[in-house]
Amino acid sequence: MANGTLLYAQSGGVTAVINATAAGVISEARARRIKVLAARNGILGALHEDLVDTSKESAAAIRALAHTPGGAFGSCRYKLKSLEQDRAKYVRLLEVLRAHDVRWFLYNGGNDSADTALKVSRLAEEFGYPLTCIGVPKTIDNDLAVTDSCPGFGSAAKYTAVSVREAALDVAAMASTSTKVFIYEAMGRHAGWLAAAAGLAGRGPDDAPQLILFPERPYDEDDFLAKVEQVVARVGWCVVVASEGIRTADGRFVADAGGGRDAFGHTQLGGVASYLAGRVKDRLGFKVHWTLPDYLQRSARHIASKTDLDHAVAVGRAAVRFALEGRNATMPVIVRSSDRPYRWKIGSAPLAKVANHEKVFPKSFIRRDGYGITNRARAYLEPLVRGEAYPPYGRDGLPAYVALKNVPVKKKLPAWEP
Amino acid sequence: MANGTLLYAQSGGVTAVINATAAGVISEARARRIKVLAARNGILGALHEDLVDTSKESAAAIRALAHTPGGAFGSCRYKLKSLEQDRAKYVRLLEVLRAHDVRWFLYNGGNDSADTALKVSRLAEEFGYPLTCIGVPKTIDNDLAVTDSCPGFGSAAKYTAVSVREAALDVAAMASTSTKVFIYEAMGRHAGWLAAAAGLAGRGPDDAPQLILFPERPYDEDDFLAKVEQVVARVGWCVVVASEGIRTADGRFVADAGGGRDAFGHTQLGGVASYLAGRVKDRLGFKVHWTLPDYLQRSARHIASKTDLDHAVAVGRAAVRFALEGRNATMPVIVRSSDRPYRWKIGSAPLAKVANHEKVFPKSFIRRDGYGITNRARAYLEPLVRGEAYPPYGRDGLPAYVALKNVPVKKKLPAWEP
Repeated sequence: MANGTLLYAQSGGVTAVINATAAGVISEARARRIKVLAARNGILGALHEDLVDTSKESAAAIRALAHTPGGAFGSCRYKLKSLEQDRAKYVRLLEVLRAHDVRWFLYNGGNDSADTALKVSRLAEEFGYPLTCIGVPKTIDNDLAVTDSCPGFGSAAKYTAVSVREAALDVAAMASTSTKVFIYEAMGRHAGWLAAAAGLAGRGPDDAPQLILFPERPYDEDDFLAKVEQVVARVGWCVVVASEGIRTADGRFVADAGGGRDAFGHTQLGGVASYLAGRVKDRLGFKVHWTLPDYLQRSARHIASKTDLDHAVAVGRAAVRFALEGRNATMPVIVRSSDRPYRWKIGSAPLAKVANHEKVFPKSFIRRDGYGITNRARAYLEPLVRGEAYPPYGRDGLPAYVALKNVPVKKKLPAWEP
Repeated sequence: MANGTLLYAQSGGVTAVINATAAGVISEARARRIKVLAARNGILGALHEDLVDTSKESAAAIRALAHTPGGAFGSCRYKLKSLEQDRAKYVRLLEVLRAHDVRWFLYNGGNDSADTALKVSRLAEEFGYPLTCIGVPKTIDNDLAVTDSCPGFGSAAKYTAVSVREAALDVAAMASTSTKVFIYEAMGRHAGWLAAAAGLAGRGPDDAPQLILFPERPYDEDDFLAKVEQVVARVGWCVVVASEGIRTADGRFVADAGGGRDAFGHTQLGGVASYLAGRVKDRLGFKVHWTLPDYLQRSARHIASKTDLDHAVAVGRAAVRFALEGRNATMPVIVRSSDRPYRWKIGSAPLAKVANHEKVFPKSFIRRDGYGITNRARAYLEPLVRGEAYPPYGRDGLPAYVALKNVPVKKKLPAWEP
């Protein structure tokens, strides 16, 4: 074993392949005889000194980790503020790292995680503590700067396109006497990446989804309903994909319009698809169904994209190499050199260029009429959903996902009092 | 070609594998040199003389049909009433059959379809028209009598168990700082078959889904919320699977409680999961997410069960054999001879024993506390979700589903005026 340990933590919403990144990290580190600890529940585990020793996991368990969705060590939604505001927390973090001789800190997440990793690296420098901090990209939102795509997005995109293609066949078969309009709600509070991915399900203008609602375009109810009516008249049925983040021209989230309280004062949980379905029913009179896949879309390892999986493993492995090379405050990113054939490699980005930046969904990806994707979008998206990477299945007919032992590391510090 | 044609039609809600049954019918008939016509949109196509000639489809298209979800010829929700009430329609049906020299009528659907096929056979007999009517089983509801299971159910069951297992890993990873309760709404207005299938996702009492709500048990809100609270206290999070058909003790559907109108008078579309999520949020204060997979669960050919697919093809092939053997007014059914190893064969049931009967969800499948499944349920369900049967994927990363040409057959009769 080399001197020093590597600490890995997962942050933010998990994905179908974040554990594949973890498997990449652990197997690469093992090959280099580096000890890997993992923080439970992301940065909170690091603060609470709640760490697990990954060396207690078998090689088979780490291989299985690569095909297991969710976050094997736990993740968290917990944002550290600026170094000034949250200085005590950053200092505590450094104490924990020091106590466990952590020389390499790998934080696997989105914008916020890149920001945290960057700040930890600055504080370590200030304190003269030798630490290399690496951000490892992950998010189904696909909104990280610099990287061409984000591990986790391709699999959620594949799930979305496959599900919409399948449901559309159902709707088409039933439309003569039953449901005429079907609405699929895609994740993406700020950008239309996943809604756009649904566009891969069809090619021609009459293929489903005939209408996509992007958060980048203000939601115009009259225009939308007129379009639905036209599609039903022309095709006989209509599949709509709506991003959860669509807003009206005055900036209000449509999802919130569906909520409120019922006659008994109970909370009515809203949702875009549910709201739109109600409008279609009330104003057009069509029979309508809708779906809210919610977490299913980001945990569907059974239909993961092979490209996405390869990316996820590669950024994990590269993060270890970057760490050992002392490339402090960087993130391994996906660099695309060609759409057809799809060619990519791992590049490097300074965390300062990732933290608190956001990749904007390109206007050139939205069809002129506002309700579909362009060929440019297709050229970008298609390679990301390409390839299947099925998990093994057990005798029970279900994917054989692993539960790690997560053996705790003995604490060396007093409990943390936030 | 033998004398006479075979007419095939699909009815009711489609499934991931009903087209596999169609492929079984067509390929078996082709091998026996029997011409197969298909009715568009189920019995409506037969009434309207809206028929397609399946001999125009290539062998490759028919093979692809076996891995394509939805209903390739269109299905319908259209119930014929009694012979007395709807006599004119039955007579018209017989006219169409006679006009196209149909000697074998295969109707692929649930209870209602079996009933229709039975009545057509009776009328043909009355009119002295030589016709063999065969019901072909299909329904994700798994509620047909006599047959051990229904083609379509196993695949929806597999989708359900896989999705719940995956989403649970997501919830478990995030629970420390985010969602604590996740609610999955399963189809099944009348019986808990699909909700029960979700139970396959876990084994121990702390595995997800920790709570299943069956329509067979009255929904008791206080008891349910107390259970959710206990599970969260013990496990840290809770996954609930709720059948869309759950009712309160006075018989009202819980799904309807969530609906109504919002402050603007807009229709609020209800749903069980959305309603339960609201109650969990209001009364327990937990962060909650929910999913309504809706049609995704019955069209998910990408995660079809191999057992289910085998059943679907087998009933299609057997239906043709039954037809040619003149076994009028029967249905090929799945007969199980052993759970472990799972052994099954095709048997035969008189349509009279299937039509208007319903297979009841066994009380012995529900755990004593009312919120889970028993080992007996597991022994029944597990073989039905076993095995994978992936569709081929195209260069676009999506399943290569086929769209048939559906070449219309020239009409020989005047238009039907209902």
